[in-house]
Amino acid sequence: MPDYTPTPADKFTFGLWTVGNTGRDPFGEPTRPAMKAPYLVQKLAELGAWGVNLHDNDLVPISASASERDSIVAEFKQALSDHGLVVPMATTNLFNDPAFKDGAFTSADARVRAYALQKTMRSMDLGAELGAATYVFWGGREGTEVDAGGKLLDCLGWFRDSLNFLAEYSESQGYGYRFALEPKPNEPRADIFLPTVGSALGFIATLDKPEQFGVNPEFAHETMAGLNFSHAVAQAIDAGKLFHIDLNDQKMGRFDQDLRFGAENPKGAFFLVQLLESSGYAGPRHFDAHALRTEDEAGVWAFARGCMRTYLIFKEKAQQFAQDSEIQAALAAYRVEDAELAQLTGTFSPQNAEALKARTFDRAALGARGPGLEQLDQLTMELLLGIR
Amino acid sequence: MPDYTPTPADKFTFGLWTVGNTGRDPFGEPTRPAMKAPYLVQKLAELGAWGVNLHDNDLVPISASASERDSIVAEFKQALSDHGLVVPMATTNLFNDPAFKDGAFTSADARVRAYALQKTMRSMDLGAELGAATYVFWGGREGTEVDAGGKLLDCLGWFRDSLNFLAEYSESQGYGYRFALEPKPNEPRADIFLPTVGSALGFIATLDKPEQFGVNPEFAHETMAGLNFSHAVAQAIDAGKLFHIDLNDQKMGRFDQDLRFGAENPKGAFFLVQLLESSGYAGPRHFDAHALRTEDEAGVWAFARGCMRTYLIFKEKAQQFAQDSEIQAALAAYRVEDAELAQLTGTFSPQNAEALKARTFDRAALGARGPGLEQLDQLTMELLLGIR
Amino acid sequence: MPDYTPTPADKFTFGLWTVGNTGRDPFGEPTRPAMKAPYLVQKLAELGAWGVNLHDNDLVPISASASERDSIVAEFKQALSDHGLVVPMATTNLFNDPAFKDGAFTSADARVRAYALQKTMRSMDLGAELGAATYVFWGGREGTEVDAGGKLLDCLGWFRDSLNFLAEYSESQGYGYRFALEPKPNEPRADIFLPTVGSALGFIATLDKPEQFGVNPEFAHETMAGLNFSHAVAQAIDAGKLFHIDLNDQKMGRFDQDLRFGAENPKGAFFLVQLLESSGYAGPRHFDAHALRTEDEAGVWAFARGCMRTYLIFKEKAQQFAQDSEIQAALAAYRVEDAELAQLTGTFSPQNAEALKARTFDRAALGARGPGLEQLDQLTMELLLGIR
Amino acid sequence: MPDYTPTPADKFTFGLWTVGNTGRDPFGEPTRPAMKAPYLVQKLAELGAWGVNLHDNDLVPISASASERDSIVAEFKQALSDHGLVVPMATTNLFNDPAFKDGAFTSADARVRAYALQKTMRSMDLGAELGAATYVFWGGREGTEVDAGGKLLDCLGWFRDSLNFLAEYSESQGYGYRFALEPKPNEPRADIFLPTVGSALGFIATLDKPEQFGVNPEFAHETMAGLNFSHAVAQAIDAGKLFHIDLNDQKMGRFDQDLRFGAENPKGAFFLVQLLESSGYAGPRHFDAHALRTEDEAGVWAFARGCMRTYLIFKEKAQQFAQDSEIQAALAAYRVEDAELAQLTGTFSPQNAEALKARTFDRAALGARGPGLEQLDQLTMELLLGIR
Repeated sequence: MPDYTPTPADKFTFGLWTVGNTGRDPFGEPTRPAMKAPYLVQKLAELGAWGVNLHDNDLVPISASASERDSIVAEFKQALSDHGLVVPMATTNLFNDPAFKDGAFTSADARVRAYALQKTMRSMDLGAELGAATYVFWGGREGTEVDAGGKLLDCLGWFRDSLNFLAEYSESQGYGYRFALEPKPNEPRADIFLPTVGSALGFIATLDKPEQFGVNPEFAHETMAGLNFSHAVAQAIDAGKLFHIDLNDQKMGRFDQDLRFGAENPKGAFFLVQLLESSGYAGPRHFDAHALRTEDEAGVWAFARGCMRTYLIFKEKAQQFAQDSEIQAALAAYRVEDAELAQLTGTFSPQNAEALKARTFDRAALGARGPGLEQLDQLTMELLLGIR
Repeated sequence: MPDYTPTPADKFTFGLWTVGNTGRDPFGEPTRPAMKAPYLVQKLAELGAWGVNLHDNDLVPISASASERDSIVAEFKQALSDHGLVVPMATTNLFNDPAFKDGAFTSADARVRAYALQKTMRSMDLGAELGAATYVFWGGREGTEVDAGGKLLDCLGWFRDSLNFLAEYSESQGYGYRFALEPKPNEPRADIFLPTVGSALGFIATLDKPEQFGVNPEFAHETMAGLNFSHAVAQAIDAGKLFHIDLNDQKMGRFDQDLRFGAENPKGAFFLVQLLESSGYAGPRHFDAHALRTEDEAGVWAFARGCMRTYLIFKEKAQQFAQDSEIQAALAAYRVEDAELAQLTGTFSPQNAEALKARTFDRAALGARGPGLEQLDQLTMELLLGIR
Repeated sequence: MPDYTPTPADKFTFGLWTVGNTGRDPFGEPTRPAMKAPYLVQKLAELGAWGVNLHDNDLVPISASASERDSIVAEFKQALSDHGLVVPMATTNLFNDPAFKDGAFTSADARVRAYALQKTMRSMDLGAELGAATYVFWGGREGTEVDAGGKLLDCLGWFRDSLNFLAEYSESQGYGYRFALEPKPNEPRADIFLPTVGSALGFIATLDKPEQFGVNPEFAHETMAGLNFSHAVAQAIDAGKLFHIDLNDQKMGRFDQDLRFGAENPKGAFFLVQLLESSGYAGPRHFDAHALRTEDEAGVWAFARGCMRTYLIFKEKAQQFAQDSEIQAALAAYRVEDAELAQLTGTFSPQNAEALKARTFDRAALGARGPGLEQLDQLTMELLLGIR
Repeated sequence: MPDYTPTPADKFTFGLWTVGNTGRDPFGEPTRPAMKAPYLVQKLAELGAWGVNLHDNDLVPISASASERDSIVAEFKQALSDHGLVVPMATTNLFNDPAFKDGAFTSADARVRAYALQKTMRSMDLGAELGAATYVFWGGREGTEVDAGGKLLDCLGWFRDSLNFLAEYSESQGYGYRFALEPKPNEPRADIFLPTVGSALGFIATLDKPEQFGVNPEFAHETMAGLNFSHAVAQAIDAGKLFHIDLNDQKMGRFDQDLRFGAENPKGAFFLVQLLESSGYAGPRHFDAHALRTEDEAGVWAFARGCMRTYLIFKEKAQQFAQDSEIQAALAAYRVEDAELAQLTGTFSPQNAEALKARTFDRAALGARGPGLEQLDQLTMELLLGIR
């Protein structure tokens, strides 16, 4: 049996804010002491991770002076170098400070919008200094509780202007960032703008330089809206827009849980791994999750190890699925091709359209055919449960 | 007090399938007899509606012969003419027949996909004959329960090929249709492709002729996913893609209810009407809803009248909102502009970026400012409740 | 490896309406022909089921004459006898006929309430004739869309009166039924009365003969409300009220899916099997689910086999869990007992209360202890995935 | 037009934690400074509230010495007396301290369970000193994320033992408390025990002294699970168990929002007020909500004023509903009584049962009758919108 021990080749990454989470929640105080960034780097390297991601203020406090900032960054870079970790992705904290309480790029206060731009440019500088190639935008405060404010259309304009500005900044600085929008339906705002992967894809089409922008889908965020995460990721892949991915777990229709990958919905996690591994996605496998608030430091590392192990277990099961002859036979039987029809439907021409309109189809036979999906699904389930 | 009686100038439309709904549901038989299309046309005209929409099989049974079809259509056109109703939108029923049980354009069976194309072309012919300018795609069966089938990426390709084909067909026939994709997250499939308005917008950007395609957002469908409908409609308007709209009501996180407009979430309905009326949307106000299964025919017309009355009530309240000086003062106070910052952030230049990065912001002051949203929301609520 | 082939000793049951489901849904026609009850009995017996359950009208059409009824019942009893199946549970269809469109026992029309009583008594007669020991009440139409009707308190009274009446009827006839209330939050009504297992338990406490009443929890129904099904079943067990159980699967926050057991939420299904098998529950394991609408008859039997196999797989995994030394050590470490405190808290006395109030607790130490839940959960997940 | 200014006779109460909320959330720091309890008392009195409720640690920090405690309590009592406010309800904070991270009464650590008992007894002493008549249990940490811990049945036992102990303590001290269990489905735990009003009612039936226990339903908590709050309150009233109530608002299927009463679901809020006012509920109308995080102190008082005004607006509308002749006629038509049937169904006897079984019902007529619910609902909506 494989040992499912991760290596940097697996491209697993964690955010500083994930393993560094102290267990504070809306109803309770932190249950774990904060751990310093260099220590987190060391521990993640020991566990087999490839990289670490960060918001600006995960590393540098918002109130730090320039010299404090430089000293913290230097110490962090030393730790990265000592332990062989990379920083593939960076992002901005535009949600913690009270200034952003009613939005950052979409605040009704022009000063807040300008400050958000400033903070992001500085954070992009930091990310570039650390070698990040992907820059994520999670607009956690970009939303509303009170739609009477009447700014819905303005907000989309403000948001677009900001992203266009920052794309130019990246180019002018030679940073070469690929930008990834991370959607979320709600929490902390009642309704967040660009709530789903699809919304982000739709918005990108309205930007000045859409080619610089893709998405950073998060398992928990789509799941909060009751959506199928693999479906959302497939749409991003189809559009050439899967720039990054956030792995975790979540129950539908509730607060943001950020559970260990695979902990809640193992079947969905399997299909996701299968999709990522088969579609040529070459980016980081980023775990945006945290240990349960009940846990101490040992629990934090059990959590991190578990995320990676579960991914590797599903990766192996995806290989097994591809080699299972009964499953492959069921898949082959599921699909019906028809060369003659392919001709007619492949390219539009008035002649093809007429021929297709004139054709006779046996509706009853098409409706009666059994696709074998219950059996295929049961076989898949038994494979997942280790019974095959 | 206004009497809220609709006229054709209000552009209210109903689907044949809405007022014609017989009350069948998953657990029970029809509670109302079917009513014929010409009678529905007459009644809708009497109530003040402008138009009526249809799926092909709402009017012409799927098993009708060509001559039966022609006679039914002729009778329907006569009724439209007699009562002065128009058919602004048409669509295809690609969900009722067992042939489409595992998808129409996204079936794993190429014959079903071809049949779906055929059926849609014929239905587009019918729509064009009836004068429809908008053609809607609701892909109710385009989805999965069993992702082990492994067709997620294929499905998006098949769906795109079909839409591209049909757009060419429309052009070649000179139909001039504007196509509107109607998203829905689930039901009848466990997960439907293109589940939200945003997903549809994202998908349109991948089509051959995106300019022919827009969206047909439905209140209930976004709401089923817990999303804010006005936010979704605002994104469609922002993208220039609001081609049609389906009005109804719904509780979050449950089966498709298709309730009378405004019956469940009056505040959300108000913001939607305010947005539609202020944004220059000139298309139909279509009610895609039906009377409760408990009702007899009198209940059906009470339902239809209620949809239109509630829209008109909110339209008047939107005017009142715009003229309420206390509310307008609160709105003005909510926004903070800054001419100097507008200069810096308006257009990107390296100089502007540097100046912005160098600027000092008073974070604490920005965070301390009270936007007055609780008061604004309470004033709005009291306006809605008729207390202002 | 065990072969997971069910036998009658496993006490698996199916409803006639489950394997007999024809695939009709709100948006489409049946995809499978109806199968006769005797044939279903034969097939279920072949698959290893123990029993079959029914609503009155699953077997006897609502419009059947007395002699038709008797002939159908005789044929059915013969099939049961031929194939060795029992009927452990019966129930009434109080939802399909339009008469019940606004409720049965809770209709605002006294005639409907009386008719519901009549129909239920007759159905109880049928159940008794077939040997059923448990009688289920699923009040699918007992609810509202329009709370303006003002009957909420009346409905609870009418419902209670009906149940009290029927409990007396059962006694007077010597039927010896144990009654099981089956809760559901919504669908087909917007809001169904007694929406959760807890609500049913609370209502039972207000009945004349609470000892005759328990609950029939259904996996999908609690899950629709986003509730944890094992928690609900545990409360029923704790109260001595688990009289029957409906096994299936479901995604949270959506329409009633009735998926194959374990198909969606295998981890939750495992904990449920573990709870049922360890708590001494001796009743039927009833699958209230149906094959996907995509399937033909072969798919129906694949579905039925899959339900039972998955249960047996989890039953074996529960045994493995109990014998896994690493898991058992984690469980032991999770619990902390304290004999001295047990003394103080075990029985109330003013002295114990005073002593307890005076005691010093080390809050910080209690908060710092790591319970090892991430590790325990990962071990469990790996056991489920067949990696341990 | 009435001015909707509250007075103490309206029995409006707020928690110290509600108007005292500082706007901290899982993603951000406080946006408002903390306000002292005596100041909150003064402000609430000025606004017309009747009382103020509290958790022990809302007033007395968990780390306060005995003398600090006494001095804080004395100052608070002086403020109550100065401003004429009462403390009708008290409760324990068993969720904020890390010691309770895996439960208080249901922790797997016996020391935590004992400490929770101690803390509650001390808090009951405080509540009694302040004159509270109702004592609330909200078990926010009583739940699980990891059901592998295997303590579901134990937890219910531990919870029951604790409540039984505390009921005896109340009696032995002569406190005369009425205990009210406050259910919540999730957050901060993945699944909280006793998740709905019904669950609490069911659990009460298993306690030693059920007559001392009732429920404290919260609008937002039932709504999070997608349940109809008025239905839950009606069940509590029907069972004689509505001991207290928490008013606020919430969208379904998401994080705990604690919105201003009536802000999200005005129609549901109206039916609730109608039910409370017509059913003889005489307890406090408690607002367990808080101002949006965007707000400053002015926003806090706008929020508090808004809660009370909206309640009074709906109270007046309930009176108007009762006097609206068209609505009352629709209600009368909705109900059908039948004296002869009432005789048969009123009391069980074998003769009545036989007569009822023999009776002929006209199913078709019962199914065809139109109850007029669409019209009744539209009339109600127009009344709410101030159009009637």
